[in-house]
Amino acid sequence: MGTTTGGVMALPLQAAMAHAAEEIEAALDALLPKAEGDEARLFEAMRYSAMGGGKRLRGFLALEGARQFGVSRQAALRAAAALEMIHAYSLIHDDLPAMDDDALRRGKPTCHLAFDEATAILAGDALQAHAFTVLAEEGTHPDPAVRIELVRGISKAAGPRGMVGGQMLDMTAEQRATPLDEPGIGRLQLLKTGKLIEVAVEAGAVLGKAALAQRQALAAYGRELGAAFQIADDLLDATATAEQLGKAAGKDEGAGKATLVSLLGISRARLHAEHLVAQARGHLESFGERAELLRLLADYVVDRRH
Amino acid sequence: MGTTTGGVMALPLQAAMAHAAEEIEAALDALLPKAEGDEARLFEAMRYSAMGGGKRLRGFLALEGARQFGVSRQAALRAAAALEMIHAYSLIHDDLPAMDDDALRRGKPTCHLAFDEATAILAGDALQAHAFTVLAEEGTHPDPAVRIELVRGISKAAGPRGMVGGQMLDMTAEQRATPLDEPGIGRLQLLKTGKLIEVAVEAGAVLGKAALAQRQALAAYGRELGAAFQIADDLLDATATAEQLGKAAGKDEGAGKATLVSLLGISRARLHAEHLVAQARGHLESFGERAELLRLLADYVVDRRH
Repeated sequence: MGTTTGGVMALPLQAAMAHAAEEIEAALDALLPKAEGDEARLFEAMRYSAMGGGKRLRGFLALEGARQFGVSRQAALRAAAALEMIHAYSLIHDDLPAMDDDALRRGKPTCHLAFDEATAILAGDALQAHAFTVLAEEGTHPDPAVRIELVRGISKAAGPRGMVGGQMLDMTAEQRATPLDEPGIGRLQLLKTGKLIEVAVEAGAVLGKAALAQRQALAAYGRELGAAFQIADDLLDATATAEQLGKAAGKDEGAGKATLVSLLGISRARLHAEHLVAQARGHLESFGERAELLRLLADYVVDRRH
Repeated sequence: MGTTTGGVMALPLQAAMAHAAEEIEAALDALLPKAEGDEARLFEAMRYSAMGGGKRLRGFLALEGARQFGVSRQAALRAAAALEMIHAYSLIHDDLPAMDDDALRRGKPTCHLAFDEATAILAGDALQAHAFTVLAEEGTHPDPAVRIELVRGISKAAGPRGMVGGQMLDMTAEQRATPLDEPGIGRLQLLKTGKLIEVAVEAGAVLGKAALAQRQALAAYGRELGAAFQIADDLLDATATAEQLGKAAGKDEGAGKATLVSLLGISRARLHAEHLVAQARGHLESFGERAELLRLLADYVVDRRH
C-alpha cells in the first residue's frame, strides 16, 4: 500500500464512484416521494437535501460490498439509497441553527435556509423514516431475514449508540472542562461517522448472505476506513477553502473543536490516517480482484482534495 | 353503542389502561439506554420525553390488538414501547420553537426547555432510530417476516406519507389562502395522528399472524378510532383548561388552526365523533368477548375529560 496515491491509479475509482453516484441519484429519484400534492414542500425539501450532490461514500460502499457477493444491482441500490437518506437527514439536522448553524452544504444553501427550519426538521425526520420503509420493502431482498438484519444494523448505527450519540458528544465536547483526549475523540468519531460507514459496507455482505468471516472482514475494513475518512475530513477542514469543500472551512478551529488534527498536528494526523488505511487494506486480504476498488478507495480517502 | 359512556362501564377499561401504562413504562425503562456515560444527556432526554406520562393510547392498542390473537405479552410490549418511542419523538419535535413552540407537555416542561434545543432534536432523532432497532431485534418476534412487516407498516405510518406528512400539512395549513375544508382537515388528521393509531392496533394482528380479514377489521377499527380521537382532542382543546390537559389549551383557536370543531361547531363535531365511534365498534363485530376493552376504548375516546 501507499504507492497507489492520488494520480493515475485513482482514475478507475473515480470513474466507478461517479457512475455509482449517478445510479444512486436515479434510485433516490425513484424511491423518494414526488414533489406534488399538499405536502409538496416536504417532499421537495427531502429531495433538495438527499439528491444532487455528495460523494455518496456510504452508498458506494454498500454497492461495492454487495458486488463482492454477486448481489443484484437493483437490490444493492435500494440499500445504498436508504443509507444516503439517513446520511442526508443527519446533515439537515446537524446544519440547523440550534446545532452547527451552517449556511452551506454541498455547495448550496442548507435546507433550513432554502426552505425554513420547521420544514428542515420534518424533512430530516421523514428521510429517516423513509429509509427504513425502503429497507423493509420486498424489493430490497426476497428474504425477510436479510431485510430485518439491514434494518437492525443500520438503525443501530444511526441511533443513540451510533450516529446520534456521536453528534451529542460533538455538541457537548466544546463545553467540557477538560478537552477530549485521543481515545475520547476516537470514540466520538466512531459513533458520529464511523458506525454508519462500517454498516454501509457490511450491508453489502448482509445482502449477499456472506459467511460470517467475510462479513466481519468487510466490517473491519469499514471501521478503519471510517476512522481514516474522518481524519481526512478534519485535515481538509484545516487546509482547504470553502470553495473546494462546498461548505464552510476552518470551522473546527473556529469552534474550538477537538479533532485528531488539532491534537496531533497536521503531519502526525496524516501519518495516523495512512496507518489506518494500511489496516483497512489488510482486512481485504482474503478478497480477490473484485475488491480492488475498495482498496483504491482506502487510499483515496486520505488523498482526496475535497 | 352509546350506552356505555363515561361512568361505571369505563372502570374496567381505565384499570386496564393504567395497568398497561405501567407495563409499557417498565418496557421503556428496560429498552431505552441507561442515562450514563458521555452521552448521558442524550439518553436522559430520551427517557425524560418517552417515559413518565401519557395515556399510552398507541401502546395500549398494540397490546389489545395482540391479545386478540394470544401473542406473548413480552413481544407485544416491545412493539408497544416502539410505538410510544415514535410518538414521543414526534411530540418532542412538534414542540420545538421552530414548530409549535410549546412550553408544556404531559404536565412538565417540553424537552427543549428541560434540556436545550439541540438535545431535543437529537433525542427525537434517537428515539425514532431506536424504535426501529427494538422492532428489528429477535425478542419482538421469532419470525423475521413478522418483524419486517412491523417495520414496514410503522415506518410508513410515521414517515412522509404518514405522520410527518400530516405535520407538514398542519404547519402550512395556517398559511393557506383558502382554509382547509372538511375533507382537507380529515386528510391532515388521518396523516398526522390517524395512521400511527391505525398501525398500532394492526401491529397486534401482525404479531399474531392474524388472517387478512381480521387484520383489516382491526385496522379499520383503528382508523375510525383515530379520527374520533382527533376530534375529541380538538374538543378538549376548545373546552378544557391547561391544568386538565397538562399542556397549553385553546391553542387551536389562538393559532387560527382549522379543525373539525372550528368548522362544524362543538355539538356537530361531537355528533360526528360519536358516529365514528359507532363505526369503529362495527368493525369489531366478528371479534368476541376479548375485544370488549377495544369497544369500551372507542366510547372512552370521545368521553374522556383529559
